[in-house]
Amino acid sequence: MQEKKIPYKIYLEENEIPKKWYNMRADMKNKPAPLLNPGTLKPMTAEELAPVFCEELVAQELNNTDAYIDIPEEIQDFYKMYRPSPLIRAYFLEKALDTPAKIYYKFEGNNTSGSHKLNSAIAQAYYAKKQGLKGVTTETGAGQWGTALSMACSYFDLDCKVFMVKVSYEQKPFRREVMRTYGASVTPSPSETTQIGKKILAEHPGTTGSLGCAISEAVEVAVGSEGYRYVLGSVLNQVLLHQSVIGLETKAALDKYGIKPDMIIGCAGGGSNLGGLIAPFMGEKLRGEADYRIIAVEPASCPSFTRGKYAYDFCDTGMVCPLAKMYTLGSSFIPSANHAGGLRYHGMSSILSQLYHDGLMEAVSVEQTSVFEAAEQFARVEGILPAPESSHAIRVAINEALKCKETGEEKTIVFGLTGTGYFDMVAYEKFHDGLMTDQIPTDEELEKSFAALPDVPEN
Amino acid sequence: MQEKKIPYKIYLEENEIPKKWYNMRADMKNKPAPLLNPGTLKPMTAEELAPVFCEELVAQELNNTDAYIDIPEEIQDFYKMYRPSPLIRAYFLEKALDTPAKIYYKFEGNNTSGSHKLNSAIAQAYYAKKQGLKGVTTETGAGQWGTALSMACSYFDLDCKVFMVKVSYEQKPFRREVMRTYGASVTPSPSETTQIGKKILAEHPGTTGSLGCAISEAVEVAVGSEGYRYVLGSVLNQVLLHQSVIGLETKAALDKYGIKPDMIIGCAGGGSNLGGLIAPFMGEKLRGEADYRIIAVEPASCPSFTRGKYAYDFCDTGMVCPLAKMYTLGSSFIPSANHAGGLRYHGMSSILSQLYHDGLMEAVSVEQTSVFEAAEQFARVEGILPAPESSHAIRVAINEALKCKETGEEKTIVFGLTGTGYFDMVAYEKFHDGLMTDQIPTDEELEKSFAALPDVPEN
Repeated sequence: MQEKKIPYKIYLEENEIPKKWYNMRADMKNKPAPLLNPGTLKPMTAEELAPVFCEELVAQELNNTDAYIDIPEEIQDFYKMYRPSPLIRAYFLEKALDTPAKIYYKFEGNNTSGSHKLNSAIAQAYYAKKQGLKGVTTETGAGQWGTALSMACSYFDLDCKVFMVKVSYEQKPFRREVMRTYGASVTPSPSETTQIGKKILAEHPGTTGSLGCAISEAVEVAVGSEGYRYVLGSVLNQVLLHQSVIGLETKAALDKYGIKPDMIIGCAGGGSNLGGLIAPFMGEKLRGEADYRIIAVEPASCPSFTRGKYAYDFCDTGMVCPLAKMYTLGSSFIPSANHAGGLRYHGMSSILSQLYHDGLMEAVSVEQTSVFEAAEQFARVEGILPAPESSHAIRVAINEALKCKETGEEKTIVFGLTGTGYFDMVAYEKFHDGLMTDQIPTDEELEKSFAALPDVPEN
Repeated sequence: MQEKKIPYKIYLEENEIPKKWYNMRADMKNKPAPLLNPGTLKPMTAEELAPVFCEELVAQELNNTDAYIDIPEEIQDFYKMYRPSPLIRAYFLEKALDTPAKIYYKFEGNNTSGSHKLNSAIAQAYYAKKQGLKGVTTETGAGQWGTALSMACSYFDLDCKVFMVKVSYEQKPFRREVMRTYGASVTPSPSETTQIGKKILAEHPGTTGSLGCAISEAVEVAVGSEGYRYVLGSVLNQVLLHQSVIGLETKAALDKYGIKPDMIIGCAGGGSNLGGLIAPFMGEKLRGEADYRIIAVEPASCPSFTRGKYAYDFCDTGMVCPLAKMYTLGSSFIPSANHAGGLRYHGMSSILSQLYHDGLMEAVSVEQTSVFEAAEQFARVEGILPAPESSHAIRVAINEALKCKETGEEKTIVFGLTGTGYFDMVAYEKFHDGLMTDQIPTDEELEKSFAALPDVPEN
């Protein structure tokens, strides 16, 4: 029997876009630990979460039992704008590496937001609209999430208030302009528009802001404004649920050609892309139907999995959000300013943390100069200029393919190419000019931020 | 019989990527006028063109007879990296306009160069490599062509020297960085590295450069360096030939669903995108097999078709290139500095000029604030942030769809979306801040530049 020739790009048909999201938690024996109320240290209830998040999203956040959740038709329609995304056979990269490995990548950058973030942004905007809200607030650092949410809110005619970390606001004016094109208001954070912003500005005049501060401002505005809620682009269970569309499409495309991957590789900041990419594969693994190596790749400068503690911690540096049990470097940890791109979050998705803790996935950290070397090599042969975040996965995919070259094994590698780097050329410039350095936190630095972990008794 | 449901995105299969380019000239009764030697005023021979251009490309430039030319397998392979490009049914835009018109657009921006320019760049790089050359030189203004050529040269391991108009070099550092990622050397023009550059710098210290000057520098380096040739991203017959891949794919996708467009709309600077998009449709029209309205859209600030003269003119402001017969504003014409984006060329493809002269196509000019209004409307509903150049076509497509709304006609409109605007956010910012103005040349200005047209007797 002749093998079906595999094209460079495997596109599903429009009617093959998933109609249900897959919820890994339903198949997990050990469920992820619940969010805790920081005051009572008891699990957050739907009622407690409702002032901050949309009702339907709260339900999804707390849903540990339903394996499949219908994707509303309005969201399916929007998905047709830019999905299905291609699964690409990296023939050019394989040839350049001279490896017997077969490499595939799921490319999520072919939309104006430039990344996979749109998959969850449109869902969150839809539920906000359905609830009759006027708008949503959020924070953005690198800018991918803010852009995606602006697009989604524009589609549903919702107001969108983005607090953008001041240093990004100033260094990435083009990101800001894309958000404005979609009608969002973009405020540099910290700002004078919130109590917490004023407080921080008074205490730290001239600060260039942080993600934690921007979260606090966005939450304050959401809770204090009639008809507004706060939305978040990663970490949360609901976000991983929405992002499962990536993995479901990937698996459907592989199944079409009878391909079974040996390993699945994704970059991990808060875990939204990785959690989505691996979802159906992890499901098979959890149900004992198949086995895969699943590898999270994180920056050596922000190594939550590989050097963090599995503990309850605050989700934000302002300590206004609930406590989540996760691999964390401590909410006071801030990666070196020399670290380029995203993946700067101190913690990690509770779902992925539990899976990692249970030995169901691996994690590896990589240094950024080696990440940019991989990015440039990939761009030259595959023709796509990758986002720095995505390039972490490229680095490890190349490493694994080179191992195959040594051993002669024809392994099948799948990785997630979450986005494009068109708005990250400042980092590429640093790399080209030899100004990029690798910054790895010392043990002492980590011990210091671990010391600030909240004291939560084991149940 | 039920109509086949048309998906949002029509993708051809990989094996449906065209294997031959289509050469409109073969079907033209009135062939485009030949390039003339500026000294003798006689048609340029292959021998005269050979020091500047690659041999095979010279042959294509002069080939007025073969309707189809094989696409070499190496180029077909590269096309698989980013082609077939999608033909998108603009359901979202139709709904927003509430029009009975059916709108389709061919999207060429889904590759890292961000535009259709890659279709010809890879062909030109291939022929240079095949001829055993070391490298190529070129100029770039907005940067799309330079980026595309850098990608193509990187793929074939050719040296790539780009002269980038100084004002762009300074204002678009990210474009420059993408080219460096692909290993190209990028020199701001005018530079001290050429005789003509030194001369211009001496005469106009502090000049921010022009496309014409950059062309002159690139040609000088190509002619003066062993193993180098000059390549150009638009205007030339060979470029339109390569770009026919756009139109051939568009027609194949439409044919699949039995769709016959009423009109085909494309933006026109030098004519590479428009000439490629319309090629097979114009072929049918030339052979009397079908009829279509074909509409070129140009900026009111650089109106070659609508206000230019049909005459022999220099292709560059330095007057070192051959003379071409075309609709031209005069080689000394420079559009207002307030004009954003590309489409700044003073002339127009000789092929399109002849077709326009023969009444086989229409042309319309649009003002840039109305172009950016259309761009923003399109971005919000279709999810793709368009390049300013492409947005000229969007503007007229929307205008035509709104006419259908008035008349109730269900016309089928196809337009070319040549690229994305991720590197054009400075122009979007100007638009958002209300600082964008419309600059239209006065009759006096045009008369002045017409006066400098060379004196070429009619044959």
